Amino acid sequence: MTKMTMTQKILCDHAGLDHVTAGQLIEAKLDLVMANDITGPMALPIIEKMGGHVFDKDKVVFVPDHFTPNKDIKSAENARDILKYAIKENLTHVMVQGKCGVEHAILPERGLVYGGQCVIGADSHTCTYGALGAFSTGVGTTDIAAGMVSGTAWFKVPEAIKFNLTGKLPQFVSGKDVILHIIGMIGVDGALYKSMEFVGEGVKELSMDDRFTICNMAIEAGAKNGIFPVDDLAREYMKNAGVEDWKEYTADEDAVYERVIDIDLSSIRPTVAFPHLPGNAHTIDEVDQEEKIMIDQVVIGSCTNGRMSDLRKAAAVLKGHTVADNVRVMVVPATQKIFMECVHEGLVDIFVEAGCAFNTPSCGPCMGGHMGVLAKGEKCVSTTNRNFVGRMGDTEALIYLASPEVAAASAIAGYIANPEKVGGMSHE
Amino acid sequence: MTKMTMTQKILCDHAGLDHVTAGQLIEAKLDLVMANDITGPMALPIIEKMGGHVFDKDKVVFVPDHFTPNKDIKSAENARDILKYAIKENLTHVMVQGKCGVEHAILPERGLVYGGQCVIGADSHTCTYGALGAFSTGVGTTDIAAGMVSGTAWFKVPEAIKFNLTGKLPQFVSGKDVILHIIGMIGVDGALYKSMEFVGEGVKELSMDDRFTICNMAIEAGAKNGIFPVDDLAREYMKNAGVEDWKEYTADEDAVYERVIDIDLSSIRPTVAFPHLPGNAHTIDEVDQEEKIMIDQVVIGSCTNGRMSDLRKAAAVLKGHTVADNVRVMVVPATQKIFMECVHEGLVDIFVEAGCAFNTPSCGPCMGGHMGVLAKGEKCVSTTNRNFVGRMGDTEALIYLASPEVAAASAIAGYIANPEKVGGMSHE
Repeated sequence: MTKMTMTQKILCDHAGLDHVTAGQLIEAKLDLVMANDITGPMALPIIEKMGGHVFDKDKVVFVPDHFTPNKDIKSAENARDILKYAIKENLTHVMVQGKCGVEHAILPERGLVYGGQCVIGADSHTCTYGALGAFSTGVGTTDIAAGMVSGTAWFKVPEAIKFNLTGKLPQFVSGKDVILHIIGMIGVDGALYKSMEFVGEGVKELSMDDRFTICNMAIEAGAKNGIFPVDDLAREYMKNAGVEDWKEYTADEDAVYERVIDIDLSSIRPTVAFPHLPGNAHTIDEVDQEEKIMIDQVVIGSCTNGRMSDLRKAAAVLKGHTVADNVRVMVVPATQKIFMECVHEGLVDIFVEAGCAFNTPSCGPCMGGHMGVLAKGEKCVSTTNRNFVGRMGDTEALIYLASPEVAAASAIAGYIANPEKVGGMSHE
Repeated sequence: MTKMTMTQKILCDHAGLDHVTAGQLIEAKLDLVMANDITGPMALPIIEKMGGHVFDKDKVVFVPDHFTPNKDIKSAENARDILKYAIKENLTHVMVQGKCGVEHAILPERGLVYGGQCVIGADSHTCTYGALGAFSTGVGTTDIAAGMVSGTAWFKVPEAIKFNLTGKLPQFVSGKDVILHIIGMIGVDGALYKSMEFVGEGVKELSMDDRFTICNMAIEAGAKNGIFPVDDLAREYMKNAGVEDWKEYTADEDAVYERVIDIDLSSIRPTVAFPHLPGNAHTIDEVDQEEKIMIDQVVIGSCTNGRMSDLRKAAAVLKGHTVADNVRVMVVPATQKIFMECVHEGLVDIFVEAGCAFNTPSCGPCMGGHMGVLAKGEKCVSTTNRNFVGRMGDTEALIYLASPEVAAASAIAGYIANPEKVGGMSHE
């Protein structure tokens, strides 16, 4: 009998089986089922057809974050519909605009996702929660509706790639650079329907926010999920979020991996994904050698990079500098709690004095939703997760994905810039 | 020769005449010409036809505030076009998203509008600057383009209504209640193409923000402009804004007014304008006697009520309370400076702890733009200026205009509520 990976063990337990193998079809019990203000409203009529009720009032959550605060009438209808349903169904966790945040940040923050869970969300970046040792993945609207009603979902057990992390990230390099580096290496289909399991001595050197960022973008390599083992840092995070009971899984020592990739964190450079794919990665050194890439907008935030340490890093680069004259910068904390931390730590002062807009938590500009959409021909450095054609607005806009530090350095310079060189940088 | 009102005197001077009379057509020199991200882009092709250049680089301003941060691709194009033009034309005051605020708040704050000026803006609430003793009024896109190129505009000299203010506003009553009370009294066409001149002993009891609010909504009574005389408070405001030189006008003692209305400020009650007209005013006492009007959203902000004292008043009511469970509250400071003051004074803490969203400066929900649009059947208490059918979203949504204090009390209660009674109020 083949040994199991972290992911396979979680799925095995949730299917009530003794053993699973890659490729096997299973039906797993779900610990949390989430939809947002885009996918939730589409799920509601399907839920209605299936009887109208959720399987567990504690385990179903609707998060208004994509087009909220309501962008237009249609968004308002969508947000109204999921809120009405949540109230009618008497759900335990009712999320109201202005009182929550971006789905993949608010669920971990509130302790609703944690180690050992099997979670589905009707949003592709649901894989974020792997940072806490959960199996979590994005599904479509029909599957989410079925999951909400039945409390189960079927999966094909994924095979896995093991990323063996060693070393420690240098200054100005963070989780975003790691995942862009990896996607650059294996390609946007490099982990297709596979688990990306991050293990090794290097894990302890990564902050929780780094791990969230890395798992968040597992889907950008085509992965079914990304996952880290639970260590002291993750335990501390979950305790602080009010989680009392979680389960920890580690892969069998001789678990079968499709591939093992060694990553020396100390060798990773600030990395930028050029248009139009997250896998189109260039180190900042490669960028510097070319002609300056002038930019119109910078976005710092999202489910990928809108957490506290992300904003701290961006602020540290921006401190004492000002944003280039005609560049607009959208800072979007991922939750209200993060917003308040930014207020209390003086980050808001740094950002606003530098010339940044400080937006209310929302997915906003990431998918061209609102709060920072791009016009034809505009260029944007963004800490978000996708730079597809038209993703943030016009199909002729160009999106460069980067870390909060690269984004901040670029905001100051007015072109894609290296945060290591901000000290001697001036645009005035 | 008939004596002149404040407004007539300003227009007379700007027309280079010795005397003007109501009804007379004049051509006046302009001291500031403003357009926003809706009207500016429409003016650009007209400017191009007229030669392409502005009359004075110091006196033309484009403010991105209505659909910014860019709501969608069209908004992004519009914002891009006015920014590009401002840069190309080398305008002195270039406003970039995230670095400015709502037009009618940012221009006074930056000292660009002040006593004695003749100002036009391609936005109906341009009449706001009358609080500083300026003649200012909203015009259409063609007129704004002509004004930007020629530095002049034609006007029919308005006749005027004199509002003789006495007394002092009670606690929980502010400028918003004054103007809603007045519009309720004279109707939405009660001052059609007239000046509303606010004078008398009561003026000194009104804060600058009260005066901005009152002048802002002069247009909602159909007025050409609203105006206050310059007093010590206005002088202090202008000095703080960096204005070095302004002109003060007072009406001739025996100036001819179409009508004189006495307003005893101490008698004004918290007032709510019911759907669908600003003139549909009810005192809060009248509201209380009816069945509770349950609400879905509250908006605190806008060019009408998004200034520092507005937000302070709302926060004072909200402090120690929480927003009703399923109500969403949008707080929108009118400028970045106001935002920072809210951060430093602890207002952000109060709002966010109570459960409010804190948005980046924008006109946002006021005209159903974004950041808080209403769905069919939803009800909203808003500190904005118009409650027309469909103004904030769906044509079947209902808008109740009120002061920041009534808005805050209603947010807590979940229904339209009296701020005087918040102490003993509970919704939980």
